[in-house]
Amino acid sequence: MKADLDRLMAERNIDTAVVMGSLAGNPTLYYMVNGARLTSGIVIKKRHELPVLIHSSIERDEAAKSGLETIDMKHYGYVELLREAGGDRLVAMVALLTRIFQDRHVSGRVAFYGTEDRGAAYSLLRAVDEQMPGIDVVGEYDNDVFTVARATKELAEVERIREVGRRTVAAVDATIQFLRCHRVRAEALVKEDGAALTVGDVKRFVRRTLFDQELEEEVETIFAIGRDAGIPHSHGEDDDVVQLGQSIVFDIFPRERGGGYFFDMTRTFCLGYAPAELRSVFQDVQACLDTVVSALEVGQRAGRYHEMACEFFESRGHPTMCSEPATEEGFVHTLGHGIGLSLHERPSVHDVSDDVLEAGAVFTIEPGLYYPDRGFGVRLEDVYYVDEQGVFHNLTNYPKQLVIEMPAGT
Amino acid sequence: MKADLDRLMAERNIDTAVVMGSLAGNPTLYYMVNGARLTSGIVIKKRHELPVLIHSSIERDEAAKSGLETIDMKHYGYVELLREAGGDRLVAMVALLTRIFQDRHVSGRVAFYGTEDRGAAYSLLRAVDEQMPGIDVVGEYDNDVFTVARATKELAEVERIREVGRRTVAAVDATIQFLRCHRVRAEALVKEDGAALTVGDVKRFVRRTLFDQELEEEVETIFAIGRDAGIPHSHGEDDDVVQLGQSIVFDIFPRERGGGYFFDMTRTFCLGYAPAELRSVFQDVQACLDTVVSALEVGQRAGRYHEMACEFFESRGHPTMCSEPATEEGFVHTLGHGIGLSLHERPSVHDVSDDVLEAGAVFTIEPGLYYPDRGFGVRLEDVYYVDEQGVFHNLTNYPKQLVIEMPAGT
Repeated sequence: MKADLDRLMAERNIDTAVVMGSLAGNPTLYYMVNGARLTSGIVIKKRHELPVLIHSSIERDEAAKSGLETIDMKHYGYVELLREAGGDRLVAMVALLTRIFQDRHVSGRVAFYGTEDRGAAYSLLRAVDEQMPGIDVVGEYDNDVFTVARATKELAEVERIREVGRRTVAAVDATIQFLRCHRVRAEALVKEDGAALTVGDVKRFVRRTLFDQELEEEVETIFAIGRDAGIPHSHGEDDDVVQLGQSIVFDIFPRERGGGYFFDMTRTFCLGYAPAELRSVFQDVQACLDTVVSALEVGQRAGRYHEMACEFFESRGHPTMCSEPATEEGFVHTLGHGIGLSLHERPSVHDVSDDVLEAGAVFTIEPGLYYPDRGFGVRLEDVYYVDEQGVFHNLTNYPKQLVIEMPAGT
Repeated sequence: MKADLDRLMAERNIDTAVVMGSLAGNPTLYYMVNGARLTSGIVIKKRHELPVLIHSSIERDEAAKSGLETIDMKHYGYVELLREAGGDRLVAMVALLTRIFQDRHVSGRVAFYGTEDRGAAYSLLRAVDEQMPGIDVVGEYDNDVFTVARATKELAEVERIREVGRRTVAAVDATIQFLRCHRVRAEALVKEDGAALTVGDVKRFVRRTLFDQELEEEVETIFAIGRDAGIPHSHGEDDDVVQLGQSIVFDIFPRERGGGYFFDMTRTFCLGYAPAELRSVFQDVQACLDTVVSALEVGQRAGRYHEMACEFFESRGHPTMCSEPATEEGFVHTLGHGIGLSLHERPSVHDVSDDVLEAGAVFTIEPGLYYPDRGFGVRLEDVYYVDEQGVFHNLTNYPKQLVIEMPAGT
């Protein structure tokens, strides 16, 4: 959490953290400007000092909403610098950072964060490192200050995620009720007009329901049926008809409108009835989830739960990535991931990760089994939060039910 | 356009372009995978060869939709590399790129593109440059291969932007009709329930209308009234009441759902009537737009039109950025910008830019005058496309009308 920033900077011997770029698609900048709706900005966070936001003149009112000390960019005269540089943006940007660093007394080890084109970032930071005396550019690749800070949440962040969870659950339930409202003809759901209900129709319903809940899809919801359900990241084909007795993987991961906090949950179900082999696989996935969740302990390495899931599935005869890295059947993905302003953040619940389940972590547990050649897959996913007392809370208040009964007479 | 990639690479002596990262918020990767809905990917484009897409195993079906030659990432065994590296992701990533480059016979000058945290990008590319024999990392800051390629559009891209424009115009018109449906009480619009209509209500209507048009807001629409209209990037305050006789800046810039092409248009209007000083400023902005547009010529430096706008406004007694860089009144922003998979791309229609209006360019022209202390601002913005014959087409088929009459009897 933000309270950790100074400690994390000290551990890495970072004197100043600079977070910059466009705001869209830039969760670290969103984090530092507290969601203010800027087009772009530069946040200067010196160790043991409050952060300062440098903003465009024409966004001064939005900048003030960040709650940070603000400085109008015109103070540094970027356009003049660009003119002096004959339009060379790299030269002008180095000159701008030089002015800002002099003005804010920034020197020593300076680390940079925030989204950018990777080639542009490399080129700018190399120039800063080479050309600015007294500035030693630090680029962190992994376990960087903000990734680690963001991996544990303040209570206000947990409440926002919990609320997104409530609304996501409402959208899932509305979708299932929507499906149940349809008539059945020859094993397929049909609409009022007699046409078959398709995956595309369902996704439209989901989108509208999320919209009504003031949520948005960064990436389209997964509603994958039959063989597609057997391929974890298949989003489902719009033209596929919704049929009885087929596994449907419904994985929904919206965020607050305007780029805020995410939620992420998955249910797998069959409409009407489920074939025996699918029932058995579903029970294995559910038992795996229960086994893992009942073993969760604060302070433990998250990866051990991925290993636990592998062992569990192998004991039931399923192939897994742990023993067969190239398998496309069985358990073929990571057990879980942190969630927050990014859909996938730390802790990583994966055997090769050293991440620890610390108090304040909010993360998914999502075991799954995939058999595309047998025409099905199953995944179940809830979000958990571990509080200061080390108690784990499931933020996903929704049942896991394989068979969704269709009302009598359909 | 994509047909220019080989030439642009040759001009920069780039042997291979690598475009990588998560797909969300990564327009260059979206461009190269032709909008396939992947979570992430690596595209290897060697000069004079077709691009190849390396994708996650669990996204093989979505990867195929890119139309590119595809390679399953499991071929390179990233998880094993991560294990061998003891969980060090930087070491594993360098090892992965080493394997990929050996397999694809990549050597020489290799340029990297696609969105990433800037510190991570710096750190990875420095490691690649230092540790991989035969690889010389190129980071382009400006006028890079993809920025320049994307600045001119193929006909299919223009058609998509044109279609987004049609739907955006429909949303603008629906919003104006929505406003006109309201009763007026004491100069303010009132809803059925007798409460005042607020900017928040209007924005909800806009969002829903865009949603119905299968468009999305990356950043919230600007609907700014009165003094807020006088601050170019103020988004408007949700609690503000919609009143007669106030300037309303309505700047709408949606994109295709799922991260596709943008449109961008602005209208300024007053409901019921407009004060005389506002009418005069509106006429100046409209005349500026007409003057600039009638002077557009293919092959000209775009910046000259920014200068032309400054000269025009100064001749009518308005302060401008050209003569007073720090002014917060008058003409205080850039005249226009290219539009495509990013809201702001090249050409930059700014005096310090060397960009040229080339055939295939799609860009905005958006003069504005701002007087926050007098409680108003005016901006008008259309999107133009210049075709292969050098003919300019306005893609924004909607009138510019300052006064929106309220129906009699309201």
